[in-house]
Amino acid sequence: MINQLITKIKETGAPIVVGLDPMLKFVPEHITKRAYAELGETLEGAGEAVWQYNKTIVDNIYDVVPAVKPQIAMYEQFGIPGLAAFKKTVDYCKQKGLVVIGDIKRGDIGSTSEAYAVGHLGKVTVGSKSYYGFDEDFATVNPYLGSDGVKPFIKVCKEEKKGLFILVKTSNPSSGEFQDRLVKAQAAVDGQDVSQGDALDRPLYEIVGEQVARWGEEHMGDSYSYIGAVVGATYPEMGKILRKIMPKNYILVPGYGAQGGKGKDLVHFFNEDGLGAIVNSSRGIIAAYQQEKYAFFGPEHFGEASREAVLDMRKDIADALNSR
Amino acid sequence: MINQLITKIKETGAPIVVGLDPMLKFVPEHITKRAYAELGETLEGAGEAVWQYNKTIVDNIYDVVPAVKPQIAMYEQFGIPGLAAFKKTVDYCKQKGLVVIGDIKRGDIGSTSEAYAVGHLGKVTVGSKSYYGFDEDFATVNPYLGSDGVKPFIKVCKEEKKGLFILVKTSNPSSGEFQDRLVKAQAAVDGQDVSQGDALDRPLYEIVGEQVARWGEEHMGDSYSYIGAVVGATYPEMGKILRKIMPKNYILVPGYGAQGGKGKDLVHFFNEDGLGAIVNSSRGIIAAYQQEKYAFFGPEHFGEASREAVLDMRKDIADALNSR
Repeated sequence: MINQLITKIKETGAPIVVGLDPMLKFVPEHITKRAYAELGETLEGAGEAVWQYNKTIVDNIYDVVPAVKPQIAMYEQFGIPGLAAFKKTVDYCKQKGLVVIGDIKRGDIGSTSEAYAVGHLGKVTVGSKSYYGFDEDFATVNPYLGSDGVKPFIKVCKEEKKGLFILVKTSNPSSGEFQDRLVKAQAAVDGQDVSQGDALDRPLYEIVGEQVARWGEEHMGDSYSYIGAVVGATYPEMGKILRKIMPKNYILVPGYGAQGGKGKDLVHFFNEDGLGAIVNSSRGIIAAYQQEKYAFFGPEHFGEASREAVLDMRKDIADALNSR
Repeated sequence: MINQLITKIKETGAPIVVGLDPMLKFVPEHITKRAYAELGETLEGAGEAVWQYNKTIVDNIYDVVPAVKPQIAMYEQFGIPGLAAFKKTVDYCKQKGLVVIGDIKRGDIGSTSEAYAVGHLGKVTVGSKSYYGFDEDFATVNPYLGSDGVKPFIKVCKEEKKGLFILVKTSNPSSGEFQDRLVKAQAAVDGQDVSQGDALDRPLYEIVGEQVARWGEEHMGDSYSYIGAVVGATYPEMGKILRKIMPKNYILVPGYGAQGGKGKDLVHFFNEDGLGAIVNSSRGIIAAYQQEKYAFFGPEHFGEASREAVLDMRKDIADALNSR
């Protein structure tokens, strides 16, 4: 799947993933109105509105981006009907040829991570049959529980030719609270000679990054690993270091646009081959029609606004990469 | 809700939560057979089997334990029909008077954590109406993203009088890989005098525990905070330290039984008042009939085996607490 993702990135010239994170305040009134008329102001109505909204966006962007990243929380908030809209969205995107990254940030002890892995990337066995639950192509994973929380995901990815993006340094303002903590060099902990001293102490995200790099090397596609990492666009200096620590891991970069990241912040996330990173934008694309710049499209033509925003983002990134 | 949980712990004399983590291999054949006959060997059939299995267990234990903890992954693996069984289980347990801890281990950037919080503990707005999505009483939360990933959960708990258990030190074998990393003392990082030296360096789980303690103090029920912590029974020495760091936080202790924790390992998780901890057992209770000790009940009477296992666990913990 990582090979397929890279092929599609090359074809579209867009190292871009569109975050399908549909808050109801983004959904144009003509869509909510129709959904509520049919199903009422209910969880079912909300699910239908979100699905119709997604469908129009996907119809307008599927040929210019390689991938989408639905954030499952935005669906889960509407309970079962919301998750049904998530599943519908995943299926539709795959049908349109898009690579689907399930932004689920799951992670648990071994046997539990196995259940998540099976449910989102693999097949679950029921009696003599087996079924895909949600069937995304990639999933994001939280590493706080350590290797035995991550390995069941890797195992399923290997079997199913799918992939992961493991959280290393997230894009949010307080991500440093634990992720940036300076970890004592293992040599010092072990009581070895540490004459090089503090040079060996490193922030936790680098330690996690090194582990992701090791997993990456063991699980390679053609040129990159199918085990990737998440590193926020909002921390470009850290991105630069992590790029070097994880040369073979694709980096999923959230935080572009609405969260503050710009094209020029992104160049260090890419390798010399122009590959190695895929940049996410969510509300900057899906709610483009609500921005002054794209307001002339009007709410009725929100899908076209999203397409225009993708093309602008593609240019912003290409310009930044060309002038580095 | 923390007050209600403590009242129920006192009433039942059981600081126990039963993990409703129904793997299909635990479900007796007469239940799967009936479910598959009705709905086929499908995801729907699996959901039905899991629900019927849970219902019988709950019917046999609801008067002797204060709480249950369904692990959402075990349902999510069956896609939408599995999650429908999760919701049915949550609703039924609440109807039987049990406190429901949703073991969801969610955690994301601010706006996304807000959606999870709303979906699992609070109400989501749809037009002029609002609805509970999953409506658990407590949820487990992953802190890797820092404060702004946790605060939206706390906000909803405050509004809804619900609660959290935040992962501090998990029960799995590799939990130390990142959680035990020795973090350099902040004073040293800031370049202050650190004549006390390494005494100030502490493992990451203590740093997280201190943050959980601060959140706890700010969000109190009558005697304990509604912001709790997860600390694995498999690490009793760390539990002893964390108990002191977080005196007002309830500690949810997984890892008893199948994962290796025993009654005597648990005493240090409790405060002098005999409160402050609630111990989880999952397969040790729900699949008790598969153990040699309870095999005489037979698969047909698996619910009674679960009840017996609860009573034995209650005694094991009480004996350990009485002899400390």
